Amino acid sequence: MESLAPFDLVLFGATGDLSMRKLLPALYRRHSAGQLPDNGRIIATARSELDRSAFIERVRENLATRLAADELTEGDWQSFTERLQFVSVDASEPRGFADLAEALAGREAHCRVFYLAVAPRHFVDICEHLNDHGLVSAQARVVLEKPLGHDLASAQAISERIGAIFAEDAIYRIDHYLGKETVQNLMALRFGNMLFEPLWRRDWVRDVQISVAEQVGVSGRAGFYDRTGALRDMVQNHLLQLLCIIAMEPPTSIEADAVRDEKLKVLRALTRLEGKDALRNTVRGQYRAGAINGQPVSGYLDEEGVPGDSRTETFVALRTELANWRWAGVPFYLRTGKRLQERTAEIVVNFRDVPHSIFHVTYGAGQPNRLVIRLQPDEGVRMHMMAKSPGDQMELRPVALNLDFAEAFQGRQADAYERLLMDVLRGRLTLFMRRDELYSAWDWIEPILQAWDTAGDAPKPYTAGTWGPAASSALLGREDASWHEES
Amino acid sequence: MESLAPFDLVLFGATGDLSMRKLLPALYRRHSAGQLPDNGRIIATARSELDRSAFIERVRENLATRLAADELTEGDWQSFTERLQFVSVDASEPRGFADLAEALAGREAHCRVFYLAVAPRHFVDICEHLNDHGLVSAQARVVLEKPLGHDLASAQAISERIGAIFAEDAIYRIDHYLGKETVQNLMALRFGNMLFEPLWRRDWVRDVQISVAEQVGVSGRAGFYDRTGALRDMVQNHLLQLLCIIAMEPPTSIEADAVRDEKLKVLRALTRLEGKDALRNTVRGQYRAGAINGQPVSGYLDEEGVPGDSRTETFVALRTELANWRWAGVPFYLRTGKRLQERTAEIVVNFRDVPHSIFHVTYGAGQPNRLVIRLQPDEGVRMHMMAKSPGDQMELRPVALNLDFAEAFQGRQADAYERLLMDVLRGRLTLFMRRDELYSAWDWIEPILQAWDTAGDAPKPYTAGTWGPAASSALLGREDASWHEES
Repeated sequence: MESLAPFDLVLFGATGDLSMRKLLPALYRRHSAGQLPDNGRIIATARSELDRSAFIERVRENLATRLAADELTEGDWQSFTERLQFVSVDASEPRGFADLAEALAGREAHCRVFYLAVAPRHFVDICEHLNDHGLVSAQARVVLEKPLGHDLASAQAISERIGAIFAEDAIYRIDHYLGKETVQNLMALRFGNMLFEPLWRRDWVRDVQISVAEQVGVSGRAGFYDRTGALRDMVQNHLLQLLCIIAMEPPTSIEADAVRDEKLKVLRALTRLEGKDALRNTVRGQYRAGAINGQPVSGYLDEEGVPGDSRTETFVALRTELANWRWAGVPFYLRTGKRLQERTAEIVVNFRDVPHSIFHVTYGAGQPNRLVIRLQPDEGVRMHMMAKSPGDQMELRPVALNLDFAEAFQGRQADAYERLLMDVLRGRLTLFMRRDELYSAWDWIEPILQAWDTAGDAPKPYTAGTWGPAASSALLGREDASWHEES
Repeated sequence: MESLAPFDLVLFGATGDLSMRKLLPALYRRHSAGQLPDNGRIIATARSELDRSAFIERVRENLATRLAADELTEGDWQSFTERLQFVSVDASEPRGFADLAEALAGREAHCRVFYLAVAPRHFVDICEHLNDHGLVSAQARVVLEKPLGHDLASAQAISERIGAIFAEDAIYRIDHYLGKETVQNLMALRFGNMLFEPLWRRDWVRDVQISVAEQVGVSGRAGFYDRTGALRDMVQNHLLQLLCIIAMEPPTSIEADAVRDEKLKVLRALTRLEGKDALRNTVRGQYRAGAINGQPVSGYLDEEGVPGDSRTETFVALRTELANWRWAGVPFYLRTGKRLQERTAEIVVNFRDVPHSIFHVTYGAGQPNRLVIRLQPDEGVRMHMMAKSPGDQMELRPVALNLDFAEAFQGRQADAYERLLMDVLRGRLTLFMRRDELYSAWDWIEPILQAWDTAGDAPKPYTAGTWGPAASSALLGREDASWHEES
């Protein structure tokens, strides 16, 4: 394990949800594990007029609720607090940036990371203030959270303004799905073994499914969500990124641009869904009142802050293909939604059935092989296959094979943010989205949005706590396929 | 599970080693499991002038040493003895066959199995006596143990005389290696899944190794063994049969002739090793004094009954190829011997290395994938592959994946003889060798024997308790391969 160089990590939005829930616990854990260098500082900023000790107290209260009791030891906590500074910064005012400049003075030679865990509308302002105060040193990096734009034009506008300040290889567009252990394990399986890559193509794969189901509704962020919808909020980034990892050609190396070039090729190979094609190959849904885990929940139109005539989709299912030699003709089914039956995120590669079964009727039925890469609620990679059941009859039984081997190794699994934060500090861009990927994703999403807009009809209603509108199943049914729903 | 029809199983050599060690325990177990029909009789025969009760007593003593205490219950044992009859039969005299005819009288319509667990020199005599006494009914089957001949001509002579009495589909040439659970599981993996068959060919497989190592010497059967040698004793039957199962094309069904046709094609595709080719691609060895598990053992030439100038090989390693589209150019390495370091039998499929590793040096080293099918001392199927080790670095680790799933199912694994006996009673010939397979195997073995004979040199000495002569490793070494020896 290579050791890290000294750094200053400037965390904007340090009192916000993401910082408290993910980033600060991740940093604390890496600190406890001895993986942060002595000279690694965390400079928390927020609009609040807190002082350092009040901020530290808030962090401690927060960590106490998030970490296991044996993780939060007094010794580790005390040494962690020594890394912590706090500066009040309001994104819209220069004043705080002067204070920040003071805190960073004399450390220009060190790695400097600006993590913008704030609403995207502040991204450009913050970057420009940082620039105005001469804080964008040669070693500076900026970490951006989604959403990066509302459509192609706005994504370009943001990117160009930030790109005028930070070089492209200093911009870390984070997608925490790519930080998942299983997503990286998938790359190891595909490219570290001879067993999968030859099968990973149209000849042997029947379809690929990427499914991200949430149980939560939109409460608390209805205003944002109603302007956004499931396609922009989830498909444009997370689902397309997962699709890229699954479908990409073997990169020539694990270096950032080698991998991102291949991902970009996937995005550009997506068949465009326009007009009637878009309507035929997508399903929009909007949840109605129902029940989640036995508790009644209200419908989308009744959520506070949602207009009563909203046509925003809270569910989307779609079918696309890739126009390349490897995947031509193989359906890629994508699905995501809120208020669905379970909280689950998974990628399923369904292999074709054996072309001819010699173990017929009296010897038991066969099932096609299926690789399930599960990201939520737990992570895991399982291969579903057929094996002989012991005994003197030639009978086959379906069995599931664990391919993530997590239990074969000791130690807690790192959280996705933990891994991605370390990658930022190490300067590894492999798992972060490049600007052209962002543009390509928006470019593919736009005609779908336009087709929906032109059609002008309402999303199909579905009852909260189900798997979405029936049309979602029918989308696959017309090709004799079905969503993988077994857990 | 289909139920069995009534049967008479006539066991020749019922007091011999094979009957006591394998066949009678197998029959008892199937009886205990309720899988033998009420009207299923076991008619034991031997030269000894025993009476039924003395034989039953001997069986009981034997079972007591072989079965677990909870297997041999009084109730099961009593009902098992009701199946048992005993008839004294000397293969060379008609008298006992008349007694046997009496015991079988009136049951011509039932399945009738003659299991010849006796020295092969008695096979023809017994069959002819059975025929002379009119015992070869329409439902009669005969089970033959190896060796079936000493060369092609003698195999043909035996087969033709037996074939004049029993139809080919009434002859069960048993090779207990094919009765192993893992060998059948291998067929299930290959033909019940899409995952292996596309990879099971020259494009993806670097080499195949079949290795059957014994720790025992030749004590007790030196006379037979010195006329036979390892090539005839093990390669001609067991190793070539395993090679057939590994290398065959997918049969159109699991029926006997569909599978045996494919096995025959493999035997006929073996590149012939003649003259210098044979000498270059085979290694003969003969053990010298050494130690097995720390106990000193004598050399082959010092074994009682072995001539001091014997050139019989107690070890053979060879390299061959298959002249067909699937396997052309892929080395098949076969190895077997006595007084080797471990008792082990396994088939190893070594896949090619990934053509280009993206997880280079700093990310850990890769190992090619390897499928190990283990038959002895324990049965198991394991896939060796690479997986990501958990953590925030992209490091690969070798892991072994269990593919036999035995522990996923409850119940004791059936012994190979148990399974094959049931197949005989059910009339399933799939796992038994057909006459043309036998001939083809001898046809391939003969030129090797001739080349050795012409060369006239002695086998290479090796120390008992090692893995055979160094030339065996060198045979693979010249292709940059090595025997799989990890357990």
